Amino acid sequence: MTIDRKTLRWNGWGPTRQENPLPNDASQWAWIQETLGMSRLPSTPAKSLENISLPVCNLSNATLKRLRDIVGDEQVCTDDYERAFHARGKSYHDLIYLRAGHLAMAPDAVVYPRNADEVLAIVTLASEENIALIPYGGGSSVVGGVNAVGKVLAGAIITLDTTLMTRVIQIDKMAMTARIEAGIYGPALEAALQAHGVTLGHYPQSFEYSTLGGWIAARGAGQQSNRYGKAEKWLVSAMLATPKGFWTTEDTPASAAGPNLNQLVAGSEGTLGVICEATVKIHELPERKDYRGYLFKNFAQGIEAARRINHADIPVAMVRLSDAPETHFFQAFSSSSSSSGLKAKLQRAYLKWKGLDEAPCLMLIGHEGDKKTVIWAQERTAIICEGLGALALGTGAGRKWYHGRFSSPYSRDPLMDRGIGIDTLETSTRWSNIVKLREAVVTAIEKAMAANMPEDTARGIVMAHLSHSYPDGASLYFTFVFPRQLEREVEQWAAIKRAASDAIIANRGTISHHHGVGLDHAAWLPEEKGEIGFNVLKALKNELDPKAVMNPGKLLG
Amino acid sequence: MTIDRKTLRWNGWGPTRQENPLPNDASQWAWIQETLGMSRLPSTPAKSLENISLPVCNLSNATLKRLRDIVGDEQVCTDDYERAFHARGKSYHDLIYLRAGHLAMAPDAVVYPRNADEVLAIVTLASEENIALIPYGGGSSVVGGVNAVGKVLAGAIITLDTTLMTRVIQIDKMAMTARIEAGIYGPALEAALQAHGVTLGHYPQSFEYSTLGGWIAARGAGQQSNRYGKAEKWLVSAMLATPKGFWTTEDTPASAAGPNLNQLVAGSEGTLGVICEATVKIHELPERKDYRGYLFKNFAQGIEAARRINHADIPVAMVRLSDAPETHFFQAFSSSSSSSGLKAKLQRAYLKWKGLDEAPCLMLIGHEGDKKTVIWAQERTAIICEGLGALALGTGAGRKWYHGRFSSPYSRDPLMDRGIGIDTLETSTRWSNIVKLREAVVTAIEKAMAANMPEDTARGIVMAHLSHSYPDGASLYFTFVFPRQLEREVEQWAAIKRAASDAIIANRGTISHHHGVGLDHAAWLPEEKGEIGFNVLKALKNELDPKAVMNPGKLLG
Repeated sequence: MTIDRKTLRWNGWGPTRQENPLPNDASQWAWIQETLGMSRLPSTPAKSLENISLPVCNLSNATLKRLRDIVGDEQVCTDDYERAFHARGKSYHDLIYLRAGHLAMAPDAVVYPRNADEVLAIVTLASEENIALIPYGGGSSVVGGVNAVGKVLAGAIITLDTTLMTRVIQIDKMAMTARIEAGIYGPALEAALQAHGVTLGHYPQSFEYSTLGGWIAARGAGQQSNRYGKAEKWLVSAMLATPKGFWTTEDTPASAAGPNLNQLVAGSEGTLGVICEATVKIHELPERKDYRGYLFKNFAQGIEAARRINHADIPVAMVRLSDAPETHFFQAFSSSSSSSGLKAKLQRAYLKWKGLDEAPCLMLIGHEGDKKTVIWAQERTAIICEGLGALALGTGAGRKWYHGRFSSPYSRDPLMDRGIGIDTLETSTRWSNIVKLREAVVTAIEKAMAANMPEDTARGIVMAHLSHSYPDGASLYFTFVFPRQLEREVEQWAAIKRAASDAIIANRGTISHHHGVGLDHAAWLPEEKGEIGFNVLKALKNELDPKAVMNPGKLLG
Repeated sequence: MTIDRKTLRWNGWGPTRQENPLPNDASQWAWIQETLGMSRLPSTPAKSLENISLPVCNLSNATLKRLRDIVGDEQVCTDDYERAFHARGKSYHDLIYLRAGHLAMAPDAVVYPRNADEVLAIVTLASEENIALIPYGGGSSVVGGVNAVGKVLAGAIITLDTTLMTRVIQIDKMAMTARIEAGIYGPALEAALQAHGVTLGHYPQSFEYSTLGGWIAARGAGQQSNRYGKAEKWLVSAMLATPKGFWTTEDTPASAAGPNLNQLVAGSEGTLGVICEATVKIHELPERKDYRGYLFKNFAQGIEAARRINHADIPVAMVRLSDAPETHFFQAFSSSSSSSGLKAKLQRAYLKWKGLDEAPCLMLIGHEGDKKTVIWAQERTAIICEGLGALALGTGAGRKWYHGRFSSPYSRDPLMDRGIGIDTLETSTRWSNIVKLREAVVTAIEKAMAANMPEDTARGIVMAHLSHSYPDGASLYFTFVFPRQLEREVEQWAAIKRAASDAIIANRGTISHHHGVGLDHAAWLPEEKGEIGFNVLKALKNELDPKAVMNPGKLLG
């Protein structure tokens, strides 16, 4: 089972019909307007599809017939809804275009293969006919990873939607691995595994609307990556349909039989072939989960705690540290919530420290596993946090976060309806560089926002958190909210994005920790990989996809 | 500081002058002769270098001058000792040739660069002049990884010895990483790190005579790989001198900026370039070490324990399980040892189970870390082992193993002096396949040995252990000892090696878990990687080394 596209927003997040988390009478609007210094909140609704005309389908009848011969008539779609739905991913940048009805970039056809053989036939057709082929899973990319970009301007484009390929082929409880078709959405995947008492444990914020294949292609990270690993860690083996044929990567537990090629598949972003199946690491369903909060006096102290937790042998599932602006925003934005236990605690702590020239930072620590291990680990993380002077907030803050862990993206559409933009970007760096990198990126975003405001009093806000940590460093995730320049939305976004990306690369962060490269980060990849590394990637692409039909423009530019 | 080649055996293991672990009057010889069914133990000493003539140096004076201009006169060696020392690695297969004085395969010159710039100049020279270049660290390869094979028969060959490059460039205790030059030997590396209270923790059996660069190039594994990881896990970033110039791989903690290229460097075996420096993960020196033994009724029960330990969240450093023949051999071979506490215990246990149609298998479990974690982990592994009916042997067996953990290779030279061959090979596979794979490989080796014996009564023995384990499976390491067919030593070895390798690939093991591919496994790599994977490796090689001068014949054949 997959999700009927008609029940999903083609130009926004989640189901077509959903409760608006920010209705016009929500208490947050006044605070948002004041915070962003906006003289008014304009009405900026999205254009409806009926009022948008799409470019004519560029595919010949002969090609369409070949596609229909492969997958059957009903699996080849050329209607406006399917083409609009698959035109772009779900980045703020994409939504600017989609909501404005700019659909010059849209696939000429969308095909839904039901198995790997059909995928290979489509890949072969695209390669033979020199047609751009865009692999598409949940379409939740926020970096332009699935956008319908052709090999040449106005060249034909086929989008290959993998979401009919949802079988769990094998569960091996001895090896704790599962072989699964790549088009399965997060909830269906977890339901199938959990019926057997196991879990992949990969819960990105996009979990409800992203697929296994997409997670691998973009090197995604679930919120509990400390325990379950980033996609490249839980990927055991993959089977791809490439223009050269099927490619199944090695699957032995560990090997010295030359370079491991799975690490080329993770992060390949559909540029080498379509991921049809993957074998992944699974875990017993955790007997216990424990999520709880700590309040640190400042970001640096929280970072120190996160580092110490990573350097001790403590099995944690998640360590998440918000900076002071995000901690404050979290509190203010949720002030309309009825269960304000967290709020009260935050305020108490805030008052306690009011005299200090610092603002508190919230850390959430998650433990998952068997009962004994969770208790053992929780006690040890508590000792580290409290030893650094943190205030233990108990499990209330953890429960609250856990309950709403997929909810943030739902607020974007209503914000965009009121002239407000919101975007996120992320990186990772070494522990010693985190505080500096955070400041550099925040400063760059603030400056770029200030230089691109719709009115004198307007201002954007930027906040950050650490959400994935390792022995050598951690990720930083930035969220920025800003009044839109309605006459130059793309330019405004591009200026902020460019400033942030330049600051990341100049300060030795990676251009992406888990969103991927896509179109939006491609300009920064050559510097990050270096000339030789970048040439290696190009050689690899040329070997597997010599006609360069696979997902043009992504990753390598 | 490095090790003066003149103090090392050019045709054997370890220092030129060393105590013979098996002198002619050792108590083990009678047992060995009987076990191998040999009517006598012949005297088969190695030929001494004075009685061996090497081929003339194939390099022109102009090329030698260019080399001397790069590294200085004293760093270019063309004398017999240096050429013989660098002719081959340390496999049984290599030793057959070296001990017989067959040095047709030897480099024409050996160069010792002192820094990465000199390495790059040498790589560039080799590429320009179309001369084969063999990167060489400790030279401990047992798969023909450093053998002086040219691009063409009788073509010129330069061996580049990295062991003057030994600097620890940076220790970052925040990131727990160290940047180190690749030519450093294990003991020097650990001494430099441990002076700062940290460790890499990579202790392969070859530790004393292998280098950082070699560990990475061959995807090596230290004995405590559960805690410290295999080379590809602790490798953070590498700097290589390639024919295309310096290549520094990405070093961010985790990234979604496309495929991770470090996993191409790990296992590249000198075929892409020379690893000059590496950034590696380090750890605090463990506060406590705890090594102890358990005796299982059979191999399958021990495997079940190893699997359960890996599936629980228990931080272990090492899990090592010998099969029944190895357990028996360990006991018998060490019977001349004075501290026979283990022996007594083994015998007691053996007697206890004598009525059963099964032979006991020894498991050694190592814990390292802070005191609390070691105690916690040790208690939990004990519960698993004893829950499966294992007999706890205490720390005696563990201490004994730990004390002698680098000693096995020293016995090979004296065995070879008495007409006896000994070789090892290894693989890994999924948990559900381990018992079957062990049996298949043991049977294949036994049959091949039986078909290649010097006399009717003679027989070889084969034993195995698991020494590296993962959530999805584990490694298997085979040791086989056999009377040599002195008239056809190479053919005898090749027959056994081929039978074992065929059995491994036919039964879904990897052709190597941590020894690498080199020359000896290259024939099996295409099947393991598949046609497309193998072509990807060739494309990568062609991109970085288009004239194919780097370590010809290794890895890709």
